[in-house]
Amino acid sequence: MPAATNMEALDQNPFADAFSACLPLPSTLDPHFEEAIRHVLDNPGSLVRPRMVFQMALAYGLDAARARDLAIALEYFHTASLLFDDLPCMDNASERRGVPCVHLAFGEAGAILAALALINRAYALSWRAASGTAPNRQAQALAYLEECLGIDGVLNGQSLDLHYATLPHSRETTESIARGKTVSLIRLTLVLPAMLGGASDREVQLLERIAMYWGLSYQIVDDLKDVLQSAAEAGKTVAHDVLLDRPNIASAIGVAGAVQRLTRFLHLGDRTLSRLLVSRPSMSFLGKLRSDLQTELVRVTHNASEMTVGARA
Amino acid sequence: MPAATNMEALDQNPFADAFSACLPLPSTLDPHFEEAIRHVLDNPGSLVRPRMVFQMALAYGLDAARARDLAIALEYFHTASLLFDDLPCMDNASERRGVPCVHLAFGEAGAILAALALINRAYALSWRAASGTAPNRQAQALAYLEECLGIDGVLNGQSLDLHYATLPHSRETTESIARGKTVSLIRLTLVLPAMLGGASDREVQLLERIAMYWGLSYQIVDDLKDVLQSAAEAGKTVAHDVLLDRPNIASAIGVAGAVQRLTRFLHLGDRTLSRLLVSRPSMSFLGKLRSDLQTELVRVTHNASEMTVGARA
Repeated sequence: MPAATNMEALDQNPFADAFSACLPLPSTLDPHFEEAIRHVLDNPGSLVRPRMVFQMALAYGLDAARARDLAIALEYFHTASLLFDDLPCMDNASERRGVPCVHLAFGEAGAILAALALINRAYALSWRAASGTAPNRQAQALAYLEECLGIDGVLNGQSLDLHYATLPHSRETTESIARGKTVSLIRLTLVLPAMLGGASDREVQLLERIAMYWGLSYQIVDDLKDVLQSAAEAGKTVAHDVLLDRPNIASAIGVAGAVQRLTRFLHLGDRTLSRLLVSRPSMSFLGKLRSDLQTELVRVTHNASEMTVGARA
Repeated sequence: MPAATNMEALDQNPFADAFSACLPLPSTLDPHFEEAIRHVLDNPGSLVRPRMVFQMALAYGLDAARARDLAIALEYFHTASLLFDDLPCMDNASERRGVPCVHLAFGEAGAILAALALINRAYALSWRAASGTAPNRQAQALAYLEECLGIDGVLNGQSLDLHYATLPHSRETTESIARGKTVSLIRLTLVLPAMLGGASDREVQLLERIAMYWGLSYQIVDDLKDVLQSAAEAGKTVAHDVLLDRPNIASAIGVAGAVQRLTRFLHLGDRTLSRLLVSRPSMSFLGKLRSDLQTELVRVTHNASEMTVGARA
């Protein structure tokens, strides 16, 4: 049964290899450029996202090759967005995924070109994943991809983020930025594979809402980490948001308020997931994302109580 | 007859409007981001490229809507590549299309996000232009787009360009960079619409060769301009290549050698075009590109003889 074979493949987490293998480097490549790209491909993140995309795609009936193409495409888009975010003109980060940022190791131009290489490949893989599906589904899915990645989604979120100093430091502002930057990519993770698999409008709506609640939750956990954890624990430059006056809900409304908001989103997400599971019990694997968020929440708040950090800046 | 209507529309050059209209800006857009994007959309270049793409697409039977989508898509890719090229970490230019570069007017992050907005829209428009054509043509055309824009094309050319100081300052090096940066975009202009219109393999091969000869010719004319003309005449930062040790065939092999090479490419292009016109006399409009190159060549060399500039650095 192909589905079983797919799930076995998934258990070995093939995405570390696929993350590197899906961008084959030609022999004519400029050696400087090759080094920069290899630095990115050799240092993948946790690869939670491509696993989830792959599972979603299989659950909605895509074959394993298309599911993998889509999973890696979305991970490439995400990785490219991190390369841009880390640049000196944006977040000016120094470390990412436990190694120096690409712009520090290979120059800003190297980082930009590596990000564009990932993006170019990611669109091609997205098209390949979408090809062969019914024309109306294909058009819907690719318009959705454009919406989430473009000026209605990630790019607008990043621009608002960069101009945060000029905006009210409120819950509304931080959540509007999170909807652009974080939720857009989670929407792609959950909704795009379902669309390509022909999910009903109602299912798409439920998945949209789950993506919104979990995306905002994920951002709150990240903001809490930034405020509460030490550099060594988070594995990236931290307490950065406050230093640079960047959006952070925990510094905007306090740690307690942020935890309360997170708890509410998790509850709303649970209710929406329950409704989805009534008609699609096979989607119970989505609970993994939910429990990961819970684990993070417990860890972060445990650290907070131990460290007694006053987060209201 | 639709084709006649299309050609009438073309005579009014609808691309200045389309260049702006094809990226509708949502009301929720960050005002800073909107300003940066409008700066780009309000200052198009000569729009020779979209006119040519549109003519090619109509000649190969695409309808006007798809031809326009493809024309604007390729112009957006080109414009985005200029925004990146102009950044301080790349060519560090100050003016483009007669106005300050986007990064000087709206910051480097603004320029990067505006370029990414154009790119995201351009992939969506390309896909829309390709949708509805036969699956094998569509796959061939989208793979070609990926090849020309990615690490086999524009991006590799730009990386070699940036590392020119470490490479032999030879004709081979400058032409290899020109094949990546300049020829790739001319290939897309001439070959992509033909592919989507179902051109034969032989026609694609002839168009590939014309794109190569004319692309290299175009780069030589540009290099000659950089070396020979004053800033006011070229409308952008000039004599920059020599100052920054950037590739320029006229400074690598001298003005006379560069003109000789250009003359040879134009001759080879003419021969290849003649062969194409035997089977496709309707493609005679391609002669316009050829005569533009000739006009530029005459103007540049006329200036050179008047100014008696010694171009051998």
